[in-house]
Amino acid sequence: MATRAKPGTRSDYADFYPLQTRWIDNDTYGHVNNAVAYSLFDTAVNGWLLDRGLFNPRTSEEYGIVAETGCRYFAEMTFPDRITAGLRISHVGNSSVRYEVALFRNEDEAAACEGFFVHVYVRRKDHKPVSIASAHRAAFERLLVR
Amino acid sequence: MATRAKPGTRSDYADFYPLQTRWIDNDTYGHVNNAVAYSLFDTAVNGWLLDRGLFNPRTSEEYGIVAETGCRYFAEMTFPDRITAGLRISHVGNSSVRYEVALFRNEDEAAACEGFFVHVYVRRKDHKPVSIASAHRAAFERLLVR
Amino acid sequence: MATRAKPGTRSDYADFYPLQTRWIDNDTYGHVNNAVAYSLFDTAVNGWLLDRGLFNPRTSEEYGIVAETGCRYFAEMTFPDRITAGLRISHVGNSSVRYEVALFRNEDEAAACEGFFVHVYVRRKDHKPVSIASAHRAAFERLLVR
Amino acid sequence: MATRAKPGTRSDYADFYPLQTRWIDNDTYGHVNNAVAYSLFDTAVNGWLLDRGLFNPRTSEEYGIVAETGCRYFAEMTFPDRITAGLRISHVGNSSVRYEVALFRNEDEAAACEGFFVHVYVRRKDHKPVSIASAHRAAFERLLVR
Repeated sequence: MATRAKPGTRSDYADFYPLQTRWIDNDTYGHVNNAVAYSLFDTAVNGWLLDRGLFNPRTSEEYGIVAETGCRYFAEMTFPDRITAGLRISHVGNSSVRYEVALFRNEDEAAACEGFFVHVYVRRKDHKPVSIASAHRAAFERLLVR
Repeated sequence: MATRAKPGTRSDYADFYPLQTRWIDNDTYGHVNNAVAYSLFDTAVNGWLLDRGLFNPRTSEEYGIVAETGCRYFAEMTFPDRITAGLRISHVGNSSVRYEVALFRNEDEAAACEGFFVHVYVRRKDHKPVSIASAHRAAFERLLVR
Repeated sequence: MATRAKPGTRSDYADFYPLQTRWIDNDTYGHVNNAVAYSLFDTAVNGWLLDRGLFNPRTSEEYGIVAETGCRYFAEMTFPDRITAGLRISHVGNSSVRYEVALFRNEDEAAACEGFFVHVYVRRKDHKPVSIASAHRAAFERLLVR
Repeated sequence: MATRAKPGTRSDYADFYPLQTRWIDNDTYGHVNNAVAYSLFDTAVNGWLLDRGLFNPRTSEEYGIVAETGCRYFAEMTFPDRITAGLRISHVGNSSVRYEVALFRNEDEAAACEGFFVHVYVRRKDHKPVSIASAHRAAFERLLVR
């Protein structure tokens, strides 16, 4: 997350996931609270995985747990904005995958915020890291932006 | 909320509002936490008011604050279920309006939960109750189920 | 929850649990959102059970799931208020227990809100109702207010 | 947030703020969801400011809005853990202040997670950046760790 003057745009992202704001998201200043962005990030990432059959929270023997996240805020969002998450992947390691996620307000081309979200794949039974399975790796490659 | 064996169905409600579950909504048992239902209720009610031009959280000089709520839970919801809120109004008083709200999972006809939500209209400046304005009253009448 | 003019006071409750507000709890009007009360209710109830060794979310073979809740709001709470939950039990059935919970702001004697919270005990493996175990029943009796 | 093998400890932080977990914080895996860390960060930072008379969300003509946040997760937290936030400041600019925040579980010396939180001071009326006032600057200096 190098310092940079301008937010990314939709064309910087490889796939998209629709999200909805809630009344409770708005804080004292009438804007979506900063922590809510991260709830939208993990909804977009887990939703994207579920849609592709790569994740079932009840049955998957291996799944990603969150190792690191970050977000830069460029513009305020407010309920009832409709949000579109932009998704891309910047790195796939042996056990970890780094998603980059942007949130776009309504029809905006420029991101309201941009962040990242690192999943480390672990075994359900003891949360020890595992190598990312080939089906996941193939799917991640399609989001990879170099 | 009299005791009763069965949840209501979509045909018991007068209007509908689409809602989305989030990853964070799921609790330790893998189901949407009970308190989240109320966040969906106030999103549906405030969203319905906003869509009709009856509410602007920044500028409305009078708005509803929550006086009482309740909910009965019939079936578990889980992320990534899509939810449809059913809305109806059971009472409009001088200052207060009582919404009844159901949450329907995906294509289910029977409600996963059913509750109510009482707004009391107040002045922004001091939160003193006011009489419900005629434009609101007219809109509420169209949701009224006797 | 019959209609009544006045909130209960601390002396109406049998036990107490300390709670903390968060910045994110405050909504657009600068007050704790109505749904947050329910998050405080289930924290107080589950915390009270954990403190007495009556519940372990990972290992208990039987536990309570929420069947019905409700709340009446009398006064606004705001971050950084410290909250004290008042707890009592009004009914213990074969499978269900009905807690009544009040939230008191800071040093206030009168409740900011009062509600109820019904747990139905179920088996972990299939969420079928079970009879409440004797150790739980004995603990519940000590909170029972007739 | 350079890559590094080990979490910081309490002695790396200049001040502390007590926090409480909630039942709803636990996710499907029985651990506090990643986004909740950020709700604890802004509770600790805003609570610290409120305690020092440096912030009133209703009346302050200038206040901090969140420009960037990040967090690395080292160990899982779970309700009903008691959390202690460690606070320090790594940079004070003309308009911005960068807090570093760690969350410690119960009596742990090592952080469960460590992150940062950048506030940019703005005017309430239009959210334009302002220079940080001298009273704030003096208080920030006392948290500054070089």
